This record gives sequence, structure tokens and C-alpha cells, in this order.
Amino acid sequence: MNAPLALVQASRPPDAIASCPARLGWMVGSPPPPERQIRFADGSAYRFPQLRWSFAHLPSLVPTAVVPRGCGPAWPLPRAERDDVDDLAFTPLHGGTAMSWAASLAANYTDAIVVLHRGRIVHERYFGVMAPERLHTALSVTKGVLGLLAEVLIADGQLDRAAPVGLLVPELAATGFGDASVGQLLDMSTALDYSEDYADPGSGIWAHAAAGGVLPRPPGWQGPDGFRAYLRTIARAGEHGRVFAYRTVNTDALAWVLEAVTGQPLAPLLSQRLWQPLGAEHDARLSIDSQGVAFAGGGLNTTLRDLARLGELLRLGGVRDGRRIVPAAAVQRLQHSAEPPVRVRRIDAPMAGWRYRSMWWATHNRHRAFMARGVHGQALYIDPAAEMVIARYASHPLPPNALSDPTSLPAWHALAEHLIADPA
Amino acid sequence: MNAPLALVQASRPPDAIASCPARLGWMVGSPPPPERQIRFADGSAYRFPQLRWSFAHLPSLVPTAVVPRGCGPAWPLPRAERDDVDDLAFTPLHGGTAMSWAASLAANYTDAIVVLHRGRIVHERYFGVMAPERLHTALSVTKGVLGLLAEVLIADGQLDRAAPVGLLVPELAATGFGDASVGQLLDMSTALDYSEDYADPGSGIWAHAAAGGVLPRPPGWQGPDGFRAYLRTIARAGEHGRVFAYRTVNTDALAWVLEAVTGQPLAPLLSQRLWQPLGAEHDARLSIDSQGVAFAGGGLNTTLRDLARLGELLRLGGVRDGRRIVPAAAVQRLQHSAEPPVRVRRIDAPMAGWRYRSMWWATHNRHRAFMARGVHGQALYIDPAAEMVIARYASHPLPPNALSDPTSLPAWHALAEHLIADPA
Repeated sequence: MNAPLALVQASRPPDAIASCPARLGWMVGSPPPPERQIRFADGSAYRFPQLRWSFAHLPSLVPTAVVPRGCGPAWPLPRAERDDVDDLAFTPLHGGTAMSWAASLAANYTDAIVVLHRGRIVHERYFGVMAPERLHTALSVTKGVLGLLAEVLIADGQLDRAAPVGLLVPELAATGFGDASVGQLLDMSTALDYSEDYADPGSGIWAHAAAGGVLPRPPGWQGPDGFRAYLRTIARAGEHGRVFAYRTVNTDALAWVLEAVTGQPLAPLLSQRLWQPLGAEHDARLSIDSQGVAFAGGGLNTTLRDLARLGELLRLGGVRDGRRIVPAAAVQRLQHSAEPPVRVRRIDAPMAGWRYRSMWWATHNRHRAFMARGVHGQALYIDPAAEMVIARYASHPLPPNALSDPTSLPAWHALAEHLIADPA
Repeated sequence: MNAPLALVQASRPPDAIASCPARLGWMVGSPPPPERQIRFADGSAYRFPQLRWSFAHLPSLVPTAVVPRGCGPAWPLPRAERDDVDDLAFTPLHGGTAMSWAASLAANYTDAIVVLHRGRIVHERYFGVMAPERLHTALSVTKGVLGLLAEVLIADGQLDRAAPVGLLVPELAATGFGDASVGQLLDMSTALDYSEDYADPGSGIWAHAAAGGVLPRPPGWQGPDGFRAYLRTIARAGEHGRVFAYRTVNTDALAWVLEAVTGQPLAPLLSQRLWQPLGAEHDARLSIDSQGVAFAGGGLNTTLRDLARLGELLRLGGVRDGRRIVPAAAVQRLQHSAEPPVRVRRIDAPMAGWRYRSMWWATHNRHRAFMARGVHGQALYIDPAAEMVIARYASHPLPPNALSDPTSLPAWHALAEHLIADPA
């Protein structure tokens, strides 16, 4: 058992009800009393239970760039709510007694969840301070959006999967990214002198966050200023293309590539290629560093339903209302692959057999489900066999999804089986 | 001639074309080169010509709270563009030769302008980095939105115009606001030991901005932290209700009152009472201080068309699509008054005869036009006789609207007369 798991069991953080951010009254008052204030600068924003409020208020805490929805109509999501979801029973991973769907939402510290079946909302819940029109951080689900965007450009012939990164972004030529291919960034099979261990204060992920201003900088910070200055410090360690290792910096390097080949900053690029044609109902927002560079590895904030719309677009193979929004090849790529897998390092047990492809997790289960995941429980789960899409935003006390998976993955699969058996 | 006017004439800032933020390439690049970066912390964001970019990117520079548009359909703005607006000739104030409408847009450093006639878009232009889906700072047009919101609550019986501020907000009881009435805040006839001279670095407006974090704080800042801490330092100076004096702190005190009587923070309150029922197409955003308190005196950011929608709602007396959104009494209040005016101090020449009512400027001209105004050229102008609404966002090099008025007010009136003569 790794350190965070031991920690959470030892310290027993307050449960979903006790930590409910609406109940705790964060930032309520004019001004809020000092003990109910949450600020970015003093680090309180990312402490539990404060993060349950912060995850739904990031643009109130840090600078963000808009990803405009454009001016067209939103893609309608008809409602067809079912009364048989809350009581659906499933068995959590690692054994234990049966649990109801409704109980799992509290167990996971769910902030909001929506289930689409055949494009209709069959189940939708909001908790705490989350609401239909509120933006919630997607954390590493952002990577899935970037992966899709890259696959769109590849399918359109604007980007070459085999091209070396250093050729497309000369500033990265002399770094560990220089001779990696775009495809290796996408599948996170680069070999870099960089670690992403959340439990190790000296790991690269914290330096990356400090450079980009995602977290307050340690006192006396002398490190790189900005995501891209940090990327330029990363050396190679080994041979690219051999081992899968989940590293956020790959996505930030990918964003640099996308901006270089299109000549557009990420926010308007994402708007133009995905958010507008998708028919998003609300503008999304991307966290940015002091130089305006987006946090591509985890900075997207969206409403729950807009995230679900993206999932529905993928479920439909890239077509919305009979109009192709995303090339079919791009969607297929996220879902599965005939290529032999690279060796997998550090995959949690419930994900055995899964593959990380273009910044998506392909489960290769019987339903060919695939998903984008972010720490603390962010998820976009697409089950093609069940014609089901689940978008979930959450604020689990600790980052590892291994803490949420046991009460999430089997619940979602059980609901998928139920929808197949009883499509209603 | 006051100092800023002398300064602008002496220093001759670059014109609208030379200062075009798209042409200057602010924040373009990955990352942008240092000389093209704009940051909040170093003060560059509000320098000219950088402010031409910043005004359309405030949520990328400072924390903001969302004012959700909700999930309903946007209020449609049908297009009926006319080709006779660009060449419309008018005579600028203070004499001079005739100017065309199109030339006036450059003279004013217009970022975006839209003209509605009978609810249809007859003219619309975007310049520089501004775009239909982009949020632009409304600056003191925000005050007009707050004034309207207060009048709605008054008309609904939730707020008493005669109530003393100190009774509604006990924290303000011992300050200069304490024995002022809500109505005196609204009409800015409070008597306060506070000055709003932009040309004086020691004036209250800069302390207010530093306390709220609207501008970077001077090195070694020891003053109040947050808008509300600053409001509590303001003493009375004279007798309330006698003299009109334009002071931003009145609006921030008003916001405190609105939050106190409704128990809601300003952003959701504004969303619920105005932005959602209005049928706004995009979420708006409010700048906030480190305690989450909104900058009510100037922190609203909206798309151009959503601002125009608000104007159209007022032109229609508060009714949208046959449904009353805002009480008729609230709208009438902004437009004119039978009450004797308080004495007016410091009104620019072209505004002679105007009245400041509930944070709106009632022109009392033949068309009974009324407007909300913000420094650097922000404007929402409603001309009931011509069935015309003009929303304009701009980034004039210097704050005073006296610099934009000569090429704006007569142009708008000329267009109004033209629309009456030739409604097409």
C-alpha cells in the first residue's frame, strides 16, 4: 500500500456529508469570516476539505483563458430520467458487501454526475456547491481533450504522428522531448528524467506545478518561471517508445506542438476545433501561467453537461446531428489499437489490461469502454456497447483514483449492463 | 483643461491602428517573447497600449466569479444590417469638421460596437482582439447594472430606499456611509471624505483599487486588505443628499447592502435576478478581491451582445418576449425623475442638464436617452424615441470619457435621428 492510501486510512478524513462545501459555508459572508476564507496564495485552496469548494471555483482563484462556446445553439440533451438508478446494486472492487449507486456517490465524494443513455439524460445529480452552470476542474481529463484535439489534427493531415518533437518545437530540440515523436507524447511512452509521484515532495510534478503557478510557489522559489521554461529543463532518461509512464509534462509538451503547428494559442484552438462544433452550452476556461500559457495537462474547467456532450460526440464516432465534427479515425484511435502495447509501468490493479492511448484509457473490456481520468475522481466514461456516457466531477480527499475506482468502475459497468438489459 | 487632457495632447499616444492589440501581438507565442507579455503583477496590464489587450482578457489576468447565464435559450438578436451607418456624417462636439461614423470608431479606440434598432442588429463591428464571444470589461457600466439590480429589489419590496445603510450593514454603521440612505448611495449624493480624481495618485480611488487588488499594490502596501476593509475606513464629510459626487465606493457599499438584504453573494444574485431572465448568451464574470468580494463599482465583464440585450430589456420597459423581467418602476427610475435634482459637482460640459439617477446617466434630451458609462469609453446608450440601443466597449488611452464624448454622443444622436427618419 502506498503512502497516500495508508494516510487516508490512518487519518480518516471527514466523509462526504461532513465535508460538504455548502454545509461548511466557504467564502460565504460579506466578507467571509477569516476561518471560512479560501485563498490561492496561502495554499488553502487545495487543502481538504477546502478543495471541495475550490474545484468548482478555480477561475475565482487563478487566472484562466476562455474557451468560447461560440454563438451557435447548444447541443440539446433531452431528459428521460429513470427512477431505477439510485437503488442499483453493485459489488465494490476488492470484495465487500453490495452497495447502492446512490451510496457510491457519497463514497466517492462526487460533486456532480450525469449519465447519458442514447443521448438522453437518464440520471443527474449535483452536490455541495456544484450546479449545472458551474465550471468544475477537469484535472487530467484535460489530457483526454488534448489527445482528441491532436488526433483531429493528425487525421486532418495537419500534424504528423511520427514527427520528432524537436523539429516542430525548436525550443525543445535539445531537451529530453527533442527526439521523441508526437505519437510517443500522445501515448506517454517518452523516456524522461522526471517523476510523477504525488507522495514525493521532490518529484517533478510539484516543480512543474510551481513553475506554472498551478500551486503557490514555495518561499524563495528560484526555479523556472512558466510551464515552458520548466519543460526545457527536462532531460532524456532511457529510450523512447518502450515503456508507458504517466507524465503530465507530455501533455504540456503536446500543447506546445499543437500551438506551433497551428499558430494558435490552445484556448482559441480548442474552441474552434472542438468546443464550438460540439455545441457546448457554456464557455470553458483553461488555467494559464503568468505568460498566458495554458495548463494543458490539467487546467480545463467545464460544466458537467458540456463534458458529457464531449463524451456523447465520441460515443457517436464523432458525428453530431448527422454532421461530422471529429474524424472517425481520431475517435477510433482513443478506443483501441491493433498495435502491440508498450510495456506498462505502474498501472493500478483494477486497470489491468487497460491501455493508455492518445491520452485516453482504453479498458478493452467487453463493452470496449474508454475513459479520460483525472485525480480526485474526475472522469469521462464512454461505454459504446451500452450506448452510455458518464461524466463525473468529484473532490476526493486524496489524489489517487485507486481510492475512487473500487466504488466507481463496478457501479458504472453494472449500470451499463442494466441499460442493455432494460433500455426502457 | 485638466491634467490628463493636457497629457494626452502633449504625448500623442499611438492612434487606434498603431495601437491595435492584434497588430502588436500581445501574448502571442509559446511562450510570448518577454516584450510581448502582459502581466497583472508588474502593472503592464493597465498601461497603454497594453490595456487594449487587457480589457478583453481580464479573467486571464485576475480572479473572477462567474455570473451564470443559466441553461435557458439565449434571447435572439435578429440581424438586419444596414449599409448606411458607416458613412453617416455628424459634427463632433466642440466644433470641427464633419466626421463619418466609421471614422469615429477609430477616433474613440472602439473595441466593439453594436447598434440595435427595434431589437434587431443594424450595425456591429469588432476590432483588434475583441470578438462576439469575448468578455470585455464594462468598468463603471457595472454600476448601472448594480443600480438596476437595486431598483428591482426596491420595486419588489425587498429593499427600502429610505433605509439607513448602517442599519442594513452593521459593519458600516460607524463609517461615513452609516447614516446615508440607500437612495443616497444610488444617486451618489453621499458626503464622504473620499476623492475620485484619477490624476491624483493620493486620491481615494487608488487606495480602493489597491485594497481590492484591482491594481497591483504599491510596494510595502500596509493599507486595508479587501474592498470592504477599505469601505470601513471612509468617514463622513458634510451632509448627505445635497451634492452629487461621482464616487465608486458608493457602488461597492451598495453591493454590500444588496448582499446583506438578500443573503446572497453578488454574482449569483445578479445571475438569478438579471442575467438568467435576460436570456444572456454567455456567462458574465465579476472581478473579485482576495476574499471573494466582487468589485461592484467596475468589475463586470460581458460580451458585447449581452450588454446590448440588457439595454434592449430596458428600452422595452423591462419586458422580454411578453414576459416581465424587471418591474416597470425600476426602469422608469433610471430614465428620469420628477424630484428636484441635488446640486451637481464636476459634470463635463457635454453632459450639462444630465442627471445621475440610480447609477445611470439620464440625459433628459429630446429622446429621453439614458446611459451607463465607464472610463476609457465603455457605454450602454438607450434612446427610447429612436427605439435604439448602442453598446460600446473601448480602450481609449486615458480614462476620462470627456475624450471620447465629442466623437460619440453626437454620432449616436445623429444615428438616432436617422433611424427615426428612415426606419427602413
